[in-house]
Amino acid sequence: MPRTEPHPLAAYPHKQSIPTRWMDNDAYGHVNNVVYYSYFDTVVNTYLIGRGALDVQASPVIGLVVETACQYFAPLTYPETVTAGLRVAHVGRSSVRYEIALFAEGSQLAAAQGHFVHVYVDRATQIPAELPPALRHALEPLQIRPTGETP
Amino acid sequence: MPRTEPHPLAAYPHKQSIPTRWMDNDAYGHVNNVVYYSYFDTVVNTYLIGRGALDVQASPVIGLVVETACQYFAPLTYPETVTAGLRVAHVGRSSVRYEIALFAEGSQLAAAQGHFVHVYVDRATQIPAELPPALRHALEPLQIRPTGETP
Amino acid sequence: MPRTEPHPLAAYPHKQSIPTRWMDNDAYGHVNNVVYYSYFDTVVNTYLIGRGALDVQASPVIGLVVETACQYFAPLTYPETVTAGLRVAHVGRSSVRYEIALFAEGSQLAAAQGHFVHVYVDRATQIPAELPPALRHALEPLQIRPTGETP
Amino acid sequence: MPRTEPHPLAAYPHKQSIPTRWMDNDAYGHVNNVVYYSYFDTVVNTYLIGRGALDVQASPVIGLVVETACQYFAPLTYPETVTAGLRVAHVGRSSVRYEIALFAEGSQLAAAQGHFVHVYVDRATQIPAELPPALRHALEPLQIRPTGETP
Repeated sequence: MPRTEPHPLAAYPHKQSIPTRWMDNDAYGHVNNVVYYSYFDTVVNTYLIGRGALDVQASPVIGLVVETACQYFAPLTYPETVTAGLRVAHVGRSSVRYEIALFAEGSQLAAAQGHFVHVYVDRATQIPAELPPALRHALEPLQIRPTGETP
Repeated sequence: MPRTEPHPLAAYPHKQSIPTRWMDNDAYGHVNNVVYYSYFDTVVNTYLIGRGALDVQASPVIGLVVETACQYFAPLTYPETVTAGLRVAHVGRSSVRYEIALFAEGSQLAAAQGHFVHVYVDRATQIPAELPPALRHALEPLQIRPTGETP
Repeated sequence: MPRTEPHPLAAYPHKQSIPTRWMDNDAYGHVNNVVYYSYFDTVVNTYLIGRGALDVQASPVIGLVVETACQYFAPLTYPETVTAGLRVAHVGRSSVRYEIALFAEGSQLAAAQGHFVHVYVDRATQIPAELPPALRHALEPLQIRPTGETP
Repeated sequence: MPRTEPHPLAAYPHKQSIPTRWMDNDAYGHVNNVVYYSYFDTVVNTYLIGRGALDVQASPVIGLVVETACQYFAPLTYPETVTAGLRVAHVGRSSVRYEIALFAEGSQLAAAQGHFVHVYVDRATQIPAELPPALRHALEPLQIRPTGETP
C-alpha cells in the first residue's frame, strides 16, 4: 500500500462529529491508533442506521467487516472533537468499500484516512447476499466518481 | 449502597452530549456497563480541561481516581446520543466527589447514575496535594447544596 | 461507601489471569479506571460460561448489571498480567452480588476491589426470573460465609 | 490490497496468548473488528518491552504508528483465548513493518492477519530517528526472509 497524501475535508460528502473520550488517549497522550477504527465503524453504521438501511437487531442481511486499513498523518488528542468524513469508493454485488478520513478539530486536511470493506451476508446462514435495495439507495449520496465521469 | 431513584436531568448543573459508538454495544445489543464509566471520566475531565483547571501534560497536580460506582436503571443503545450530567457533591482539602448521571436521548430521567472520587496528588511525588485555586474555582458552578441551605 | 482495606488474594476462591493490553493504559501511563470494570465483567462471565451456567447466545435467563463499584488502591500498568479474584457475597431469588479484586503481578494485596450486581431476567420479557439451578450450582464454590457461620 | 490466503501459525516465529474479554464482543456476538488492532499493538509492544527494546516512560526514541491494516477471515468470540503471531517483514533506517496474525483457540490457520508500521521518532522533537541498536537486536528473531534467500 503506497503512502498517500492526506485528503481534504471537501472530498467526503458525509461528515459526523465524534467527540473524543478520556480513555481514547494512550500512554503517549494521543488517541490510540486502535480507536481510529472505532470512529470508522461508528460513522459507517450511524449513517446506515440513520438512513434506515441497517437495523442491528432485525436486518436479515448484515455487513461483516472483511478488511480495514488506516494511514496516520497527524495525532488526534482528547478532548478535541474529531470530524469523520465518509464516502463510498466501490459498490459490488454483495460488498461495499467505504472510505473514511478523520479530521482534527478545525482542520481541512485529514489526520488519518483509510477504508473499511463490508461483505453483506444473510444473518442466519452467513452466506453472501445481494445488497438490499434500501442499502443501495442509502449509498448513492456517498459515491464518488473518477474525475471526468459524469454522474 | 441502597438502591436510589433515578435523578432528573434538572438536578445536574452541567451537561455534555456524548454520542455512543458502535463498539460501545455488547453482545446483548446495549451499551456495555463498563462504557458508562468512560462517559463519567469524559464529562469530568472535559469540564476541567475546558475551564483551564487541568492540563493533562503539564498540570503539577493531577487527579487520581480512588473510587467509582454506578447504578443502572435502563439501557442505553448505540446509535443514540447520551447526555451526561455533572455535579459536585463534596469538595475536600485534596479530594472531590463528582456525581454523574447519564440520560438516554430525549429522556429527563437518568438511565444510570453514580459517582467518581478524585484525590489530587503532586504529579511527581504522588503525595496528596491541596486542590489548586483554579480547580476550586472551576468546581463552584457544579456544587449542589442540601435542601434548605442558602448559598 | 466507607473506604475499606485492600483484601488479600486468599480471600477470593476463584482466580483468573488477565494480561493487560497496550490500550488499557491512559495518558498518565496506568491502566485507566474504566478498564478495571472490563476485568470485572470478564472474570464473572468467563467463570459462568466455563461452568455451563451462561450461554450468551441461547440462555433463556440472562444477567443484567444493575450496580457496580470499585475502590482503587494502587496502579496497574501494562504490560503486567493482572490476577482477578472472584467471590460471591450474596445470592438472592433473582440477583447475585459478585465481589472482585484485582491484584498486580506478584502481589498478595488488592490493587483494587469492588462489586458487581447481576439481576437475572427472562431474555425476552426482561422480567426478573429465579436463578436457574445450573447457575446456583455454579455459584456455590464462590460463596463466602461470615466468620463463625457453618456451611 | 489483494485478498490473501490465511497464514499458518507456523509462519510466525513469536506467539502471545491473548484472552478475549466480555466487552470485546459487539452486538453481533463476535469480537469487534476494532479490537483486533488492540491485539496487534499489544503483541508488538509486549514483545518490545519484554526484550528491553522499549520503555514507555523513558525511551528517548519511540514508535509512532503510521499505518495499520487487517484482513478478517473468520470470527473470534469471547471467551476464547486468541493466539497472536508476530513477525517482522521489513526493517528500514527508522521504520519497522510488523506482521501479525490472530488465531482462534486451537486453530492453525489465521482468523485474521495484517500489518502495523512503526516509524521511530525522537520523543521530544518527533523527528524520525535511527532505530536504536537494542531495538534492531530485538527484531532479529522476528525477521522472515523471502523464499530462496539464505539467512
